[in-house]
Amino acid sequence: MIGVGVGPGDPELLTLKAVRALDGADVVAHFAKAGNASNARATAARFLRPSVTELPLLYPVTTEHPANGSEYGSMIQTFFDAAAQAIAVHLQAGRVVAVLSEGDPLFFGSYMHLHVRLTKQFPTEVIPGVTAMSGCWSAAGLPIAQGDDVLTVVPATLAQPELARRFRQNEPTVVMKLGRNLPKVRQALLETDRLSNAIYVERGTMHNERLMPLASKTDDSAPYFAIVLVAGREWRR
Amino acid sequence: MIGVGVGPGDPELLTLKAVRALDGADVVAHFAKAGNASNARATAARFLRPSVTELPLLYPVTTEHPANGSEYGSMIQTFFDAAAQAIAVHLQAGRVVAVLSEGDPLFFGSYMHLHVRLTKQFPTEVIPGVTAMSGCWSAAGLPIAQGDDVLTVVPATLAQPELARRFRQNEPTVVMKLGRNLPKVRQALLETDRLSNAIYVERGTMHNERLMPLASKTDDSAPYFAIVLVAGREWRR
Repeated sequence: MIGVGVGPGDPELLTLKAVRALDGADVVAHFAKAGNASNARATAARFLRPSVTELPLLYPVTTEHPANGSEYGSMIQTFFDAAAQAIAVHLQAGRVVAVLSEGDPLFFGSYMHLHVRLTKQFPTEVIPGVTAMSGCWSAAGLPIAQGDDVLTVVPATLAQPELARRFRQNEPTVVMKLGRNLPKVRQALLETDRLSNAIYVERGTMHNERLMPLASKTDDSAPYFAIVLVAGREWRR
Repeated sequence: MIGVGVGPGDPELLTLKAVRALDGADVVAHFAKAGNASNARATAARFLRPSVTELPLLYPVTTEHPANGSEYGSMIQTFFDAAAQAIAVHLQAGRVVAVLSEGDPLFFGSYMHLHVRLTKQFPTEVIPGVTAMSGCWSAAGLPIAQGDDVLTVVPATLAQPELARRFRQNEPTVVMKLGRNLPKVRQALLETDRLSNAIYVERGTMHNERLMPLASKTDDSAPYFAIVLVAGREWRR
């Protein structure tokens, strides 16, 4: 099994290694919410052989819930068990299975749940990818960290006081998983006087990318995969 | 000017976009310590056109000093000013200049110092790359962050109490810029009871990669670009 990072969304940001892995795969698996198309598949579509077997893995529920809710937790564990089993069938038959991951497979990616379930029985390989956050700060032209900087990556799902505690460190900070958490993130940035350092990026590196100072964004709607970059220092010269 | 991320070291981990940018460049600039070959150039060598003009940018001093030392600070600023000027000459002549960056250009990369100096006068583009840390946790097969995890990236140059403060948060942590700081990092991990969660990775994704539990590493020597990954949770099932 090969976990294949497909990068932040621009198909040109797949690595040569990822492209070769897709070309050599017998089966390509991809995660999506039931009823939705897989983002990772859309990014990698042009690199899939027409004859390849596809294995969609459809989440039974939204992934926007905190991972520690017990009913949600058991549902999602059951789903990952079944997904791993579906892949194991192909691996046992000697097929090469590539699992698409948005960004980087082991950085907040669903692939990791298959990896920990299958890595003892089957050979596994992980092809790292460009993360969504790298795509976003590159699109924004924002040098995110240098020298002795400490970079913190926080999910927007944290409680507001916890977000504020992180922002108060005055260090470069990336906020992921925005979605419905945007108003809370904005409040925590206001409270810690860092809103003016924040850049909002939606669909970074994609053709329909949107990018603006968060302070200029007047509405509260954001896709789950939008990112806020909080610069740690002034870069004016 | 194009900042081109060449990834963690395996030439197969360049993106398609990076390869195309190198193929279209008139000038390829790369940073190295005086007397050393550029790591980024070594990674990208096979993608440079034989006729391309190369512009080596040679640091006058080691980069292992803290960036806030004042004499060091002014030397390095002078160096970046001169490097930006050397590139500006080519840009003014209408040439396309690609600047190679190990990993990702705006994540602890020297490219950013050219970017902030030249972005107002010249069109700039940044091609994100796979970071060294993604290469390392992929090589280790370590799911670094999931769900509500907070990931912290710290430079090993921080003082030991500050490193310990970060480790004490019991969150996934990446320690960069190891070099001579390894004994200090080990001590801070011991002190916070996290040494058993730490993986040492040297030249991740390269042919001569070394990877081991930090607790099994008996000596104190580490290259500057070695990384320690500190897992935030148990992944055994």
